[in-house]
Amino acid sequence: MPRHVDHVARRREVVEAAARLVAAQGRAALTVRNVAGAVGFSTSVVSHYFDDVDELLHETYSWAAARARVRIEAVLAADPGDVAGVVEAVLPLDEVRRDDWRVWLAFWSEALSTPALAEEQRDRARTTVVRLERSLRVRQAAGELPLDVDVRAAARRLGALIPGIAAEALFDPTSWGPRRQRDVLHGELALLGLQPPRAVAKAAG
Amino acid sequence: MPRHVDHVARRREVVEAAARLVAAQGRAALTVRNVAGAVGFSTSVVSHYFDDVDELLHETYSWAAARARVRIEAVLAADPGDVAGVVEAVLPLDEVRRDDWRVWLAFWSEALSTPALAEEQRDRARTTVVRLERSLRVRQAAGELPLDVDVRAAARRLGALIPGIAAEALFDPTSWGPRRQRDVLHGELALLGLQPPRAVAKAAG
Repeated sequence: MPRHVDHVARRREVVEAAARLVAAQGRAALTVRNVAGAVGFSTSVVSHYFDDVDELLHETYSWAAARARVRIEAVLAADPGDVAGVVEAVLPLDEVRRDDWRVWLAFWSEALSTPALAEEQRDRARTTVVRLERSLRVRQAAGELPLDVDVRAAARRLGALIPGIAAEALFDPTSWGPRRQRDVLHGELALLGLQPPRAVAKAAG
Repeated sequence: MPRHVDHVARRREVVEAAARLVAAQGRAALTVRNVAGAVGFSTSVVSHYFDDVDELLHETYSWAAARARVRIEAVLAADPGDVAGVVEAVLPLDEVRRDDWRVWLAFWSEALSTPALAEEQRDRARTTVVRLERSLRVRQAAGELPLDVDVRAAARRLGALIPGIAAEALFDPTSWGPRRQRDVLHGELALLGLQPPRAVAKAAG
């Protein structure tokens, strides 16, 4: 390999190609040969960066999780109380977010029998619930969520709705398009008595 | 093969062994050799019943779905309005239901790239929502659910909570034990204004 290769960029390129492969064709398509073909490198270059396909699968999972985290953090930076925004940042509402879910689901079945991977999924889910709880408290403090709402329980329910809506949408994209996904989410927020997002309220007012 | 073999029973035995394998060790463990070993048949007996591992995986999925359906139908036969019972019949509240979910999740990642499999998952999810909607209407007609509740929307939300709670529980069994799973479900039912199950009300009264 030439000396001036940017190894970080190249490794990342391999991970992105792997993620696209898994999203388009499923877990079974993730082979060193396929990834090498997709990214235009030799199989030995791919093997240089990853010990095996398991490591590569793990990296694609983390890559999708990292870009989801960027979306969530952007939402929270704009408005720490944007509960709906946090959930929508990880619902499969467009191609990018659908691809993330395809990668995660491919990973789930292996995570069930691989403790280290299960832990990564678990930690991600816990972090999401903590974030939702914080955002709900922001809204409660602002008088936009009734004080008698059990915020922790509400955050857990919203956290569980995320993979649930995602599963429905991935297997039934015709019925579970962006509109129904949002309806289900906003129906839950309305039940909680959460006032509509401030931006919307402002635009309407 | 001897003439008197009960082929239906034997095929079923193979499917059950395959399901146990997938539940315990994940999709990757599902090979003709492993299934044959687990069930004590030769690989040629297993191959006699199934064209390939894909067919066997599909059958394990259907097998888990069928036993879940039996549980749901038993709940509805006892009480057509037992909304919580329908959901609990498919939450991973015990080892049997956890195993069902392990089989389904193993199947999901392949279903994403296999339209016929995705369709089976989609139909199951749609059937669940229809059942939940019917049970909610039974409760509404009995005056146990406020008339202003949008039953269809509520059924969709409950339907989405099922795979969502299951995903949380599978990857985080310590935090998401049976108690928290039920709390999340019953929290949602309380938000809807659904009266507690009649059996419980009777026992308490």
